[in-house]
Amino acid sequence: MVESARAMDHKLAGVDIAAADAAKARIRPLARSTFTAGVLSEIGSFGGMFRPDLAGYEEPVLVASTDGVGTKIRVAIEAGRHDGIGYDLVAHCVNDILVQGATPLFFLDYIALGRMDAARVEAIVSGLARGCREFGCPLIGGETAEMPGTYAEDDYDLAGFIVGVVERSRALPASVREGDLLIGLPSAGLHTNGYTLARKVLFESCGYAADTWLAELGATLGDALLAPHRGYLHVLATLLERRKLRALCHITGGGFPGNLPRVLPEGLAAVLRRGAWEVPPLFRLIQARGAVPDGEMFRTFNMGIGMVLVVSPQDLHDVEHSLERRGEMSFVIGRVARGEGVAWE
Amino acid sequence: MVESARAMDHKLAGVDIAAADAAKARIRPLARSTFTAGVLSEIGSFGGMFRPDLAGYEEPVLVASTDGVGTKIRVAIEAGRHDGIGYDLVAHCVNDILVQGATPLFFLDYIALGRMDAARVEAIVSGLARGCREFGCPLIGGETAEMPGTYAEDDYDLAGFIVGVVERSRALPASVREGDLLIGLPSAGLHTNGYTLARKVLFESCGYAADTWLAELGATLGDALLAPHRGYLHVLATLLERRKLRALCHITGGGFPGNLPRVLPEGLAAVLRRGAWEVPPLFRLIQARGAVPDGEMFRTFNMGIGMVLVVSPQDLHDVEHSLERRGEMSFVIGRVARGEGVAWE
Repeated sequence: MVESARAMDHKLAGVDIAAADAAKARIRPLARSTFTAGVLSEIGSFGGMFRPDLAGYEEPVLVASTDGVGTKIRVAIEAGRHDGIGYDLVAHCVNDILVQGATPLFFLDYIALGRMDAARVEAIVSGLARGCREFGCPLIGGETAEMPGTYAEDDYDLAGFIVGVVERSRALPASVREGDLLIGLPSAGLHTNGYTLARKVLFESCGYAADTWLAELGATLGDALLAPHRGYLHVLATLLERRKLRALCHITGGGFPGNLPRVLPEGLAAVLRRGAWEVPPLFRLIQARGAVPDGEMFRTFNMGIGMVLVVSPQDLHDVEHSLERRGEMSFVIGRVARGEGVAWE
Repeated sequence: MVESARAMDHKLAGVDIAAADAAKARIRPLARSTFTAGVLSEIGSFGGMFRPDLAGYEEPVLVASTDGVGTKIRVAIEAGRHDGIGYDLVAHCVNDILVQGATPLFFLDYIALGRMDAARVEAIVSGLARGCREFGCPLIGGETAEMPGTYAEDDYDLAGFIVGVVERSRALPASVREGDLLIGLPSAGLHTNGYTLARKVLFESCGYAADTWLAELGATLGDALLAPHRGYLHVLATLLERRKLRALCHITGGGFPGNLPRVLPEGLAAVLRRGAWEVPPLFRLIQARGAVPDGEMFRTFNMGIGMVLVVSPQDLHDVEHSLERRGEMSFVIGRVARGEGVAWE
């Protein structure tokens, strides 16, 4: 054994393995609370093991996606509330595979922090677990890394990975045609996009803080900005099952022009109707305070529409009825026409 | 349209969507170079689609894992070389599912940067793609996020996500017994663990830089620290196929005591033999310069052993022969005995 007065260990160097073990102990029951029948492994294996139930599938296709929550994390840190950000991440990822027609199989997370703080990690993972339970998507693995130097002591980042499954013949988008209608479902706020711009305008330019009460919003700014990302799985499951959807589009980074073209065949454009829905107060506040041009707003934010459904005109009534029965508001926000990209009328 | 002299847009706020599009354009051909027959989707879909070839499986089990490369990234930044770090990540993840007996199906990456720099992203992804091609593991999706405020302008983080498959009856570990032997395969350096401590000792305390030539290493410090993480898939494929392995252990964060117990049944310990292999110069240098105690070294670093095989004594000769034929060095580093954790003799 080498020992000396200037002996260095990993903890002195900034990495606390005991704290990591404490964090793992808090994560374990949370992860276990999400387990479903397919989970074969315990937390702590190198890889999470999942036996998919593929009975009834002719040609099962795995659909995988990864995402972060962007700088919404910075609002969580400013507000000192970390139990929502994990939920946001799960909802985001669930939506990202839902638009291919897939339902979730399992989820993994990556958390990197400037300092391993078991309570902080527990708060983050409790949100992840809540989302995983809600969407039937067991949290079968993850990595929690302490990286002093990359992240400030109080700072962290969070990424999620989801895998789902879809029968190949049911994958979306499928046969989107000229004349199809675009139906928008309400978002619950910014979801997880545009926070860099929103923070710049509201925190930096306006000097607001997370606890600033804003009458326009009927809420503190922190509450408004941390509103959870909506997951649309349960609202849309029946319509997917009944093959009433030709495409789905999750409005995320890049806004309408960055996402709608991704689900349309070449030669077809999304023509949106101005005023088809009321842009919620939070977006109007950001636009007014920052003097942000319309184009920039729609390229950055969801503007009140979190998910767009592409449906055949003859299915419109049926789809609207199904959404209504689930208590879901919807707006016909436009149509599919010859052209390219996103246009307005 | 709202326009004004103080109009704010996302780019002014620090997020450059055009730069993100440029980065995506560079990623696309790299990702495509990794595609195999199962890949159904193009890059740019919300989720990557993969049709697993499950013919011949009776009960296929998906094995998923996620990891980062820790603060090895900081050495890459210091050295200005970003094309190795992605390879490291893939090799690390491939090993993490290999220890469950699984072979890779597909890979996804998450890159978060302080500033979107298309050349930097291209370098990182070129390393990912190289690893993905080598291990037959298509890169079917990923997220590249610009997060000013969380990351310094020149800084970034990287996480990977892998899914593989194993026949349930062939999953590892399987029936590890008292008396089994532990065979170590050489690592190529620190792989992706212990960089916080290594950097503290070598850069901070000793004042070395990435381009410092160290006679003990016969290399610059940058070259030594950035040596690629070894992926053991091809070396071990035949032995897995022939059911000659009872367990595999990837020596990562937590070193020997943090990883070996994870693959042993309760009541059994790993008894390691001192001097069974020569600890490579880089580890000896860190230990000497930092006066790091032995225990801390083995809890932090792989100490020259990247993968441990647990084999039955009667298979020893066969296993050694198979490794030799692949040009792979190996060391019998210990055995499985009654007890708990890791012991030395």
